[in-house]
Amino acid sequence: MTTAHAWAAPAAHEPFAPFTFERRTLEPQDIRIDILFCGICHSDVHFARAEWGDPHYPAVPGHEIVGRVSEVGTAVTKFKAGDLAGVGCLVDSCGHCHSCGEGLEQYCETGATGTYMSVEKQSGLPTYGGYSDYIVVRENFALKVGHDEANLAAAAPLLCAGITLWSPLRHWKAGPGKKVGIVGIGGLGHMGVKLAHALSAHTVAFTTSPGKVEECHRLGADEVLISRDADQLAAHANSFDLIINTVSASQDLDMFAKLLKRDGTLVLVGAGTEKHIAPDAFTMLMKRRSIAGSAIGGIAETQEMLDFCAEHGITSDIELIGVDKVDVAYDRIVASDVKYRFVIDMATLPTA
Amino acid sequence: MTTAHAWAAPAAHEPFAPFTFERRTLEPQDIRIDILFCGICHSDVHFARAEWGDPHYPAVPGHEIVGRVSEVGTAVTKFKAGDLAGVGCLVDSCGHCHSCGEGLEQYCETGATGTYMSVEKQSGLPTYGGYSDYIVVRENFALKVGHDEANLAAAAPLLCAGITLWSPLRHWKAGPGKKVGIVGIGGLGHMGVKLAHALSAHTVAFTTSPGKVEECHRLGADEVLISRDADQLAAHANSFDLIINTVSASQDLDMFAKLLKRDGTLVLVGAGTEKHIAPDAFTMLMKRRSIAGSAIGGIAETQEMLDFCAEHGITSDIELIGVDKVDVAYDRIVASDVKYRFVIDMATLPTA
Repeated sequence: MTTAHAWAAPAAHEPFAPFTFERRTLEPQDIRIDILFCGICHSDVHFARAEWGDPHYPAVPGHEIVGRVSEVGTAVTKFKAGDLAGVGCLVDSCGHCHSCGEGLEQYCETGATGTYMSVEKQSGLPTYGGYSDYIVVRENFALKVGHDEANLAAAAPLLCAGITLWSPLRHWKAGPGKKVGIVGIGGLGHMGVKLAHALSAHTVAFTTSPGKVEECHRLGADEVLISRDADQLAAHANSFDLIINTVSASQDLDMFAKLLKRDGTLVLVGAGTEKHIAPDAFTMLMKRRSIAGSAIGGIAETQEMLDFCAEHGITSDIELIGVDKVDVAYDRIVASDVKYRFVIDMATLPTA
Repeated sequence: MTTAHAWAAPAAHEPFAPFTFERRTLEPQDIRIDILFCGICHSDVHFARAEWGDPHYPAVPGHEIVGRVSEVGTAVTKFKAGDLAGVGCLVDSCGHCHSCGEGLEQYCETGATGTYMSVEKQSGLPTYGGYSDYIVVRENFALKVGHDEANLAAAAPLLCAGITLWSPLRHWKAGPGKKVGIVGIGGLGHMGVKLAHALSAHTVAFTTSPGKVEECHRLGADEVLISRDADQLAAHANSFDLIINTVSASQDLDMFAKLLKRDGTLVLVGAGTEKHIAPDAFTMLMKRRSIAGSAIGGIAETQEMLDFCAEHGITSDIELIGVDKVDVAYDRIVASDVKYRFVIDMATLPTA
């Protein structure tokens, strides 16, 4: 075991503070990544504030990790010291079930191991996330990052926000000739607009904020709809192939379902504590519409997304902060006051 | 125009009575079918009792029609006088939109013409259904019926109940190696069990009635679950490829969604007046599950289903009645007191 330094929530309502813990010694298939940047996902806030259950404090969130490989196990073949590497929401899975066999480790039928909020199989200890100076991970759960050095911080959110939108966009075949809606233009949604646009879909942003219209066009939206304007929505009835809803607050699913054409799909990627309002059965029946859910993405599709983004120069729009600003950032995330993702510069982490 | 005799609802709460009206003279592509049998669908009840809006009384329901061709237009090629023929829920559609082009006339983007509760394009008059002595229909909306004479009455419900289950079973690929659930063992559901079984899917019937267990096995169910028994359901969590819910009363969709495996689909084919209870977003996300709707079926798939049923000896379980029993039958349908479909022997219709 080796000692790692982290920035941890000591309890639900206490400010983040330094914390040290032990990470496992490298096994043959492990690599060690010295963490350069870690994005802040809304899930981090839910986790650190015990909104998803007791996180076993001190809690170390972070699953949008980019860094540099500093050591590799004896059986490692994909990485060498000095390589850039990323870690997303998963660090392990069974490897044997149908879902793992299809490269969809996030749906591992025995339960994937989360980068935090899980138990490490090797040690039986809690997993600790990316608000730390390094991480030890099986090479098969590490991703290659092809972005320029100057864009590394802004690439970090691709590991969760990016793949959460990429996976449904690909699964439901967003591309040329398809009309794709992205509901909620925040950390997830702004990536959805960028990715759908880059995939050459006709991209429509749905926002509740008239002030975000120009911003949405800048991100790549072909059209922008104010989702509280019933007349604007009615003009787009029966026209969407795919709508991805990133908003976790309770919503009237019927309103969005009616915008789908025959065989169109409304995909939920956010999950809050309140239930949505069910669509009318007639709305579903009359055009064979579907409502589905999608969770993050598998390792292979995450690599595909990172390669696509590196090639197309796609990153997240971020605000880079030091670890001392994490508490303020959490409050601003809850208030939707960030365009569009905080990323922590891990060089600011105290390690003495 | 020629005079047709019918059995019609004069008003929402008056008993059915004889009624005469005019049907259009045969156009070149029309055929005339003398109606032998007409099934009673729950939609007939909603329509005749004005539960779906004013039906423009007198109302002539009926869209599970089997009869014999008595006359054909000059351009007709598919039928000749003496052939058996069927008519289901549709008698026309635009023929030009994407849905019509794909043989999914039920989703016609300009609105298909219903066998009743629509306006006939040729005349601008209301369409009148199958509780009548004959019907005039474009040959492209008539189906060939390959069943033996002895099974004609029991084949009538295939035209709506049968195709309503067949279309989603085929669209979502029910077949060998797939586990398929049918919720609600009534007019629709009993056809679902028969068809899923005949398609070689592992077929599971969901019923609220412990007394129906043997019956469900007889219909073809490999397993029968009492849907009010939470423990029974929990034992089948994450195991279904497809569940078709025929119940239109409000239900907790989360309960059924949790039974789906990854990428499984819960399909609604019934629509009542109350909303269902939405599933938890987490239930949808964690296994990329879908909830969809499906409405009847297109002409080509209806023919495919009829051919399949004729070949496999599949019919509906019916109670054959005379027109004088229609009012009683409606009350019994509302009370779920029929195994499983009433069919009217149209020879009992007064035509004098």
